[in-house]
Amino acid sequence: MIVRGKPGFLALFFVYHGSIIPRVIPQILLVALLSSVVVWVHLKFPSLFPQLNTASFGFIGIALSLYLGFRNNACYDRWWEGRRLWGQLLFEGRSLLRLGLSYGGGQSALHRHIVQCLMAFTDCLRDQLRNQDPMPKVRRWLSAADCATVDQAVNRPDRILQLIGEQIALEVSKGAIDSVTARNFEQRLVALSAVQAGCERIFNTPIPFAYMLLVHRVCYIYCFLLPFGLVADSGLATPLLTAIVAYAFFGLDELSCDLEQPFAINDNGLALNALTRTLERECLQTLGEHPLPPPVASHNYRLN
Amino acid sequence: MIVRGKPGFLALFFVYHGSIIPRVIPQILLVALLSSVVVWVHLKFPSLFPQLNTASFGFIGIALSLYLGFRNNACYDRWWEGRRLWGQLLFEGRSLLRLGLSYGGGQSALHRHIVQCLMAFTDCLRDQLRNQDPMPKVRRWLSAADCATVDQAVNRPDRILQLIGEQIALEVSKGAIDSVTARNFEQRLVALSAVQAGCERIFNTPIPFAYMLLVHRVCYIYCFLLPFGLVADSGLATPLLTAIVAYAFFGLDELSCDLEQPFAINDNGLALNALTRTLERECLQTLGEHPLPPPVASHNYRLN
Amino acid sequence: MIVRGKPGFLALFFVYHGSIIPRVIPQILLVALLSSVVVWVHLKFPSLFPQLNTASFGFIGIALSLYLGFRNNACYDRWWEGRRLWGQLLFEGRSLLRLGLSYGGGQSALHRHIVQCLMAFTDCLRDQLRNQDPMPKVRRWLSAADCATVDQAVNRPDRILQLIGEQIALEVSKGAIDSVTARNFEQRLVALSAVQAGCERIFNTPIPFAYMLLVHRVCYIYCFLLPFGLVADSGLATPLLTAIVAYAFFGLDELSCDLEQPFAINDNGLALNALTRTLERECLQTLGEHPLPPPVASHNYRLN
Amino acid sequence: MIVRGKPGFLALFFVYHGSIIPRVIPQILLVALLSSVVVWVHLKFPSLFPQLNTASFGFIGIALSLYLGFRNNACYDRWWEGRRLWGQLLFEGRSLLRLGLSYGGGQSALHRHIVQCLMAFTDCLRDQLRNQDPMPKVRRWLSAADCATVDQAVNRPDRILQLIGEQIALEVSKGAIDSVTARNFEQRLVALSAVQAGCERIFNTPIPFAYMLLVHRVCYIYCFLLPFGLVADSGLATPLLTAIVAYAFFGLDELSCDLEQPFAINDNGLALNALTRTLERECLQTLGEHPLPPPVASHNYRLN
Amino acid sequence: MIVRGKPGFLALFFVYHGSIIPRVIPQILLVALLSSVVVWVHLKFPSLFPQLNTASFGFIGIALSLYLGFRNNACYDRWWEGRRLWGQLLFEGRSLLRLGLSYGGGQSALHRHIVQCLMAFTDCLRDQLRNQDPMPKVRRWLSAADCATVDQAVNRPDRILQLIGEQIALEVSKGAIDSVTARNFEQRLVALSAVQAGCERIFNTPIPFAYMLLVHRVCYIYCFLLPFGLVADSGLATPLLTAIVAYAFFGLDELSCDLEQPFAINDNGLALNALTRTLERECLQTLGEHPLPPPVASHNYRLN
Repeated sequence: MIVRGKPGFLALFFVYHGSIIPRVIPQILLVALLSSVVVWVHLKFPSLFPQLNTASFGFIGIALSLYLGFRNNACYDRWWEGRRLWGQLLFEGRSLLRLGLSYGGGQSALHRHIVQCLMAFTDCLRDQLRNQDPMPKVRRWLSAADCATVDQAVNRPDRILQLIGEQIALEVSKGAIDSVTARNFEQRLVALSAVQAGCERIFNTPIPFAYMLLVHRVCYIYCFLLPFGLVADSGLATPLLTAIVAYAFFGLDELSCDLEQPFAINDNGLALNALTRTLERECLQTLGEHPLPPPVASHNYRLN
Repeated sequence: MIVRGKPGFLALFFVYHGSIIPRVIPQILLVALLSSVVVWVHLKFPSLFPQLNTASFGFIGIALSLYLGFRNNACYDRWWEGRRLWGQLLFEGRSLLRLGLSYGGGQSALHRHIVQCLMAFTDCLRDQLRNQDPMPKVRRWLSAADCATVDQAVNRPDRILQLIGEQIALEVSKGAIDSVTARNFEQRLVALSAVQAGCERIFNTPIPFAYMLLVHRVCYIYCFLLPFGLVADSGLATPLLTAIVAYAFFGLDELSCDLEQPFAINDNGLALNALTRTLERECLQTLGEHPLPPPVASHNYRLN
Repeated sequence: MIVRGKPGFLALFFVYHGSIIPRVIPQILLVALLSSVVVWVHLKFPSLFPQLNTASFGFIGIALSLYLGFRNNACYDRWWEGRRLWGQLLFEGRSLLRLGLSYGGGQSALHRHIVQCLMAFTDCLRDQLRNQDPMPKVRRWLSAADCATVDQAVNRPDRILQLIGEQIALEVSKGAIDSVTARNFEQRLVALSAVQAGCERIFNTPIPFAYMLLVHRVCYIYCFLLPFGLVADSGLATPLLTAIVAYAFFGLDELSCDLEQPFAINDNGLALNALTRTLERECLQTLGEHPLPPPVASHNYRLN
Repeated sequence: MIVRGKPGFLALFFVYHGSIIPRVIPQILLVALLSSVVVWVHLKFPSLFPQLNTASFGFIGIALSLYLGFRNNACYDRWWEGRRLWGQLLFEGRSLLRLGLSYGGGQSALHRHIVQCLMAFTDCLRDQLRNQDPMPKVRRWLSAADCATVDQAVNRPDRILQLIGEQIALEVSKGAIDSVTARNFEQRLVALSAVQAGCERIFNTPIPFAYMLLVHRVCYIYCFLLPFGLVADSGLATPLLTAIVAYAFFGLDELSCDLEQPFAINDNGLALNALTRTLERECLQTLGEHPLPPPVASHNYRLN
Repeated sequence: MIVRGKPGFLALFFVYHGSIIPRVIPQILLVALLSSVVVWVHLKFPSLFPQLNTASFGFIGIALSLYLGFRNNACYDRWWEGRRLWGQLLFEGRSLLRLGLSYGGGQSALHRHIVQCLMAFTDCLRDQLRNQDPMPKVRRWLSAADCATVDQAVNRPDRILQLIGEQIALEVSKGAIDSVTARNFEQRLVALSAVQAGCERIFNTPIPFAYMLLVHRVCYIYCFLLPFGLVADSGLATPLLTAIVAYAFFGLDELSCDLEQPFAINDNGLALNALTRTLERECLQTLGEHPLPPPVASHNYRLN
């Protein structure tokens, strides 16, 4: 996630970090080059491209904006839902902490176990969503025995939630907490499980592939045909105009690609490291640890 | 569901698996053929089609993009809601597993019964949503007596949930679990029932038929009239331009048709087999089974 | 609800059942007739209509598509929410059945009473949403005494839910079920009450009347002015083009009218009879009745 | 709320009650008058306005339709959410009644107290949302002592909910109902509190003022410039065309203004009186009162 | 938040407080100035800019309206969600008050503690969302010991919720309230925690930076190119037309920037002070305090 203030008027045009331009510059140059060739040919043979009128571009343009707009909305919704799910992880985690503190006390084994499992769950989920090996982080938090069962588990984050569930059931059977209070804990676990399933849904199920193909193909075709339609009227300005159109369309397209996978590590991905660290600091503080690890800082305006 | 990375620039135009083109090529060719005839006639009798100006196409085009855009949004929402419901099935199922493990233990009859019913429910729901006979799969999981009642049941998945409910009530009457803990189980069953009803809603209630008729008819009329409007200005380029417009419109239309039924077995259907297998592996692991069945692999980039 | 597969290419243009055309044919013919008159006058007095350019139609057209698009979305949302509410009725009803089976048993008076009240509730709600007298159906399910109180009730479906609530409270006071289990039942009743209130909301509160007026008036004015704008350019093709525009706009308008009242008995209304029968069959089966009434069949592709 | 059937074809153009025209007729006439002046000047001095081409109107028109469409959607969402909240008030109120009946009985002091508080809450909330003094209505329902505390309260509806809460807590302390059943009541109170907060949110927080300014200013500028752009092409038809565009845009704008405040007493406000009376009749019936007050009738097709 | 009635026709054009114009006047003037230069050059050298036709502006304009429309919707949703979250804070707070009153009584230490923590939570959350130091306000409400733990806490509002949770657990352990009633309190705390996480989500996660860049860049490019496209047709009217387009686009853009951060202190920020004071007055009244602090008044039509 890029974190920087709104740049001033002139700076706006020279901002590089966080811009989508570096990734669409090849397409823009390609389109501008093609336009230049078309202009050159047109100047040589003026009667060659007079017949393409711009109405048909309008029709394809309507379809294209329909596609790009839809895809952009769908991708942004995925991104924002990803952020919402991690926000939910945070407050469900905090509620679990609060319950642990209230019914066990900060120094109790119950609370310590909850804190460790919660952090292991969060680290594990984040690493899986980023295609990284979660076990090194998990080992920081769990005992060797617990790590072993988590490592073998088909669904590692869920196995960690099971560890909390088993601990709660044990406390109930010991009479330390009653089954009504256990329901408070249980509802937090169900919610954390829902967060995990939501994240996996976004992670595993991209926008249907055929959309991507349709959008890209129509986008390329449109930008490649555009100079033929504009050259008769716009002459030497054609490469500039087509380059701007290409920037507007390919830029949005590339941005949508990024937002489609909100957990990826790039300029527009969510700052899962920062969120995890936030929760970690809160967790460790309830255990009385001191000093706490520092918050994650942004690097080149980027927070991961 | 098609699972493949974003193809490179040139590959983009030659991707076949996952593309919608094979299914709209007849319409595109038909429109291109008609265009060619119109161009030929226009070259022979130039004064025949001069009078259709493109403004009226703009007006129909606005209506058409309104329809296609609406239908596309509605169908994508159905598809994504279908995925959301199966994600909910997963985490409610996992919560049921966790409760079974916590309050019964992995080797208990209660837990084993829950696992078997959960898998039978999932297999049964998936097969019904795909118009397949669910009983072979159900028989893998349930006892002969249970299978018999499920087979006769008007609503088979719900009958399986009733089996879990009866088991829970039995445990309560035996005093093995108290009624507060039983509410934890009960809420999972209500949620699974909601998942089933949501899936059946999407499965049984298509977008109103009249929409489909309106969209298709206006789409065909538009594409068939377009060459008459373009030929005076665009001349020999008319077939190419109308073919591109036809590709853009029919492609979106066909894609919407697919997404309308998210549980169908096709390129854009949800990967219910893979999701079911995921849950199955997690279920079997809690029973200590080894080795587990492998995850479902994609075939020709397609995951069912 | 129309239930039929996607027709083939040629069949598409001749489908009659489920099409919106029969209801908008008067408007289309009126517009086509007016166009023909305009063309005839134009051929006689060519200098009469040259001055209307099409730009102003574009401006009205943008406003019109804004209206039609908005209204279409709002009406479809009402229709889909109606379906969603009935899906909720189904699964809340099933959960009530499951609770009755689990805590009373299939042959208990409690379960029989729940089944009868649930079916009476469903039939009563459906008939009220269709402006039909619900009492004949209610009498099939309830005792004469209960029917009397339901008949006199200001809010009949809610009175039926009160009957269930009173029965549950009675069981609690007898000690047959505890108050925790009673909460399971109570939450289903609240949810059924929410379903009823949601259905009544859609039934009693149409889209604001002024929208309908605005949309219709602008739609008619637009279609009546269109031939004057097109005749100079499109000549003899004007009646055809205006008829197509009229079909696209009036068709969507009429379809929106249908979807606005999703519980009505027409081609696009929800199949409440079929949904009710589905629940009835499941209810009766839990009572061990045999044979069950058959599912509702579609007639002329229509399911009510 | 206007309640009337869809008028026939001719009647459609002469409907007055419920139409938005009376409120936008000044703007329409102003625009038509300006257009006439422009036409007159243009006929006198044809060379004065030739240079404004319509393309720039298209660009402003796109922005304007973006604004009007957005504002219309946002306002309709507020209106529909207002109706949804009152639907929720109804079913939460009914659930409270049902609980009172079930656990107290229709003649109990508990139930009578709940009924009175519920009606006082509903009347009080409605009157506050309509800027009316709620105390006369509240005095109909509550004892003098309760009225006094409600009258002094900063938040009157919430004070009434507190009265119910205190009564429930009293019943629990007396042992008349257990704390599990009290949770059933408590959850209804939380929900009623949510309804109140939702209504106050809509009531107190209009769409940001700057939107209204932007929309109005651009709308006026657009309609005032339009005749200059159209006069060269459309000549004498200019006043008619601009009047239609003004009707379409100002009509939608005025309608949005109405829907923004769904609780106001006007043609498009929600029928809160009718909804309150509906609940009142149900409440009084559970107390065995006879005869009940009649339902609210519409007056000049309007239901308040 | 600007709170003022709809201004009359003429006043509409001279409203200053609440208007977005003061902030976009530099851009508008810049564009108008550029336009004037272009007009001047065009009058001198008429053959210099004839070749840019307006079609390409239409294509960029479609993309631009797509961007601005999307961003506007996304920002308004954030703003409205912010308001919704604070409405939720209010009713969850009120429910906590009602519970405290019911189960402790207005004079009890439990209730007083809840009131103080609730107000400290609200003040603390508001100040953090506005980048202000929350401790002065928190000190008004909490004891020195509690303040110390809050001051050191990584997450201050959450620490305050923990204080309530610990108090509730203490009451349970003393037997003053049972664990079922404690669940009523606990659910309010979870909800308040969700409100906090939601506010932090909106506060910490802006719309992706790349959108802002894309929108701004395309918006500037568009407005800077527009005079070249319009000058051939519109002549001397070009600066006026481009200034209006710039006002429409930059105005919406600036408004979106405001709504993106709904908790900021500006014309379009939410009136968090007023909402906090509302809750404060309700809280203090339940403690019997008199006189209450007055409601927050608007200043220059602005409520903070």
